[in-house]
Amino acid sequence: MEAYFDNSATTAPCSEAVSAVSQALVNCWGNPSSLHASGNRAKDLLDSSRTDIAKKLGCLPEEIYFTSGGTETNNLAVIGAAHKMRRMGKRIVSTSVEHPSVDEALNVLEAEGFEVIKLKVDGYGRINEKDLYAAVNSNTILITMMLVNNEVGTIMPVEAAKRAALMARSPALIHCDAVQAFGKMPIKPSALGVDLMTISSHKIHGPKGVGAIYIRKGVKINSRAFGGSQENKVRPGTEPMPAIAGFAAAARALPDPKKELEHIAALRDYMVTKLLEIDDVVINSPHDALPYVTNISVLGIKSEPMLNFLSERGIFVSAGSACSKGKKSHVLSQMGLDHKRLDSPLRISFSRFTTVQEIDALILGITDAKKVIRAAK
Amino acid sequence: MEAYFDNSATTAPCSEAVSAVSQALVNCWGNPSSLHASGNRAKDLLDSSRTDIAKKLGCLPEEIYFTSGGTETNNLAVIGAAHKMRRMGKRIVSTSVEHPSVDEALNVLEAEGFEVIKLKVDGYGRINEKDLYAAVNSNTILITMMLVNNEVGTIMPVEAAKRAALMARSPALIHCDAVQAFGKMPIKPSALGVDLMTISSHKIHGPKGVGAIYIRKGVKINSRAFGGSQENKVRPGTEPMPAIAGFAAAARALPDPKKELEHIAALRDYMVTKLLEIDDVVINSPHDALPYVTNISVLGIKSEPMLNFLSERGIFVSAGSACSKGKKSHVLSQMGLDHKRLDSPLRISFSRFTTVQEIDALILGITDAKKVIRAAK
Repeated sequence: MEAYFDNSATTAPCSEAVSAVSQALVNCWGNPSSLHASGNRAKDLLDSSRTDIAKKLGCLPEEIYFTSGGTETNNLAVIGAAHKMRRMGKRIVSTSVEHPSVDEALNVLEAEGFEVIKLKVDGYGRINEKDLYAAVNSNTILITMMLVNNEVGTIMPVEAAKRAALMARSPALIHCDAVQAFGKMPIKPSALGVDLMTISSHKIHGPKGVGAIYIRKGVKINSRAFGGSQENKVRPGTEPMPAIAGFAAAARALPDPKKELEHIAALRDYMVTKLLEIDDVVINSPHDALPYVTNISVLGIKSEPMLNFLSERGIFVSAGSACSKGKKSHVLSQMGLDHKRLDSPLRISFSRFTTVQEIDALILGITDAKKVIRAAK
Repeated sequence: MEAYFDNSATTAPCSEAVSAVSQALVNCWGNPSSLHASGNRAKDLLDSSRTDIAKKLGCLPEEIYFTSGGTETNNLAVIGAAHKMRRMGKRIVSTSVEHPSVDEALNVLEAEGFEVIKLKVDGYGRINEKDLYAAVNSNTILITMMLVNNEVGTIMPVEAAKRAALMARSPALIHCDAVQAFGKMPIKPSALGVDLMTISSHKIHGPKGVGAIYIRKGVKINSRAFGGSQENKVRPGTEPMPAIAGFAAAARALPDPKKELEHIAALRDYMVTKLLEIDDVVINSPHDALPYVTNISVLGIKSEPMLNFLSERGIFVSAGSACSKGKKSHVLSQMGLDHKRLDSPLRISFSRFTTVQEIDALILGITDAKKVIRAAK
């Protein structure tokens, strides 16, 4: 048996997505821009996929633009919005725990002359709303904040961004990186008050290589890609149809997120209770984190040998974000954790396919790892 | 029976690609950046895919970087190279018949202050090599030229770019958009003297949503994407594994391009002979075009009704580039064709799966279309 607990890095494609991709490759492989029946069939599949994704966000189909994934989308949202708004001000407000695809885009903008404020977080990875209200001024053109942190599961007060912009009489566009939240909690961009939102297929059991940006109707950002007129020129290039069809199939297959959350929370509580029975295990995630993600430290055992020990048993966890491969966690550092916790983090991330048996195997694995790795020292 | 003659727009995925994509989705869906066995399996597939693509270009695996497709790659090559080289000069030399993803990227650079020269072409879409030598000076930092034109199949003198740079003592990087050439003729970037090359999966019977940039070892360009450390930071973002695996499978399945060219040329000659028996058909492609692409005009019948008539019979041709959907052909205009030919172009593009029976159906279709559409006037 394999037990996969790295669902924040990527998820197993669901059977619906796998068959939609195959179908598209075999029966609907035309170029949606071609003006003949083969192209039209592909265009129809593209349109219906867009509608299916839009339904899950409670938005209009024309507010969804397909991209190659989360990184491209976050880059496009942050840089495209800042460049579009550059004449209205130069301040950008964000947090110190964003995904690298937002964080590094902000660094690029800072080097271009934008004034970037990255709000500090507390020991649970949360910003203080008062800091947000203080940072946003009338010169602020963009507020970008993730909805769920990818390393600790902390839920951010994204809906406060709109209030902050209104209070400051700022023209700011509001972007939300919802990659880790989409499909796992009820989300509606309009209810959150955001203008731009990033979602990704391979975090919801769809194929890699496709994501989408929500752009609220009437909002304009600068494109970062140049060529044909696909995706209304926001994102030129032949649409990755097999992946888009798989993304839409995965979205359609999502259970009601509210009901599913109860189930996942129960699994998480079961696991945390068992984990806390093991000496030297501390929980780094807040109690009210999205229950899909639990970050722990096993004090005294570095992440790498623990990962390897578990991997040999077919139990897959991570030390942090897959994107920062091996480096010390930026998020946990920002949370101010001491070096003992910083040396030994494990991110355990669930999917709707996670079982109690897998959790039991993980608990046993960590217990055994402690004995074996300590004995080997 | 359907007869598909729009292979320059996109191709039918081959069975090898379809099964590689399914395999990757079902058995190898881990994140290549994850440090456990599931991630390692995906990393191995990524590495072997890179090696397979490199073999087809006679280059090193580490000279291949995967992207989302041709448009992203052309944008990255042109803009990334110009930005990297900006301190060494400001002239960029290209042609007036490049794909929009090169052409529009050049317009962006021109707006930024680069001096962009787009060489004129003759009636067959060819530049004059003398013009190239005259245009490249010591201030030239980039020469970008397609190898095979996507609308007429004209083969460009890409190997002259390196000579031009050497003669002018210019530091120019040389980029070649080889999207329409890869897999269809023998190509080796080092033999062509290019530093950067663009290739795309869905033009060689692989899945859409993946392409690659060849960057000669030692050459540096600016990245346009920011985030994780995937693809050596040239192209961050989770790698689109199922599509990459499909791309590699399609590349492995390619026949020897030299032998295949003879077969395709014979088919093209058969078709052209039959076409010229029809009144009012003129050939817009040069005699020595890559035989996969033949551009014709059926004088007196506009492209759209012809496309529709043929499409209803299951015969799929295009009026030009899929990316410029419906607009008058930029390439044919640059070639100086008169308005009668400009109004009525058809691009007939072959693949290795094209048959004589399909060609016969096309010839009959065009013959019948002439009668029916003219009668309806």
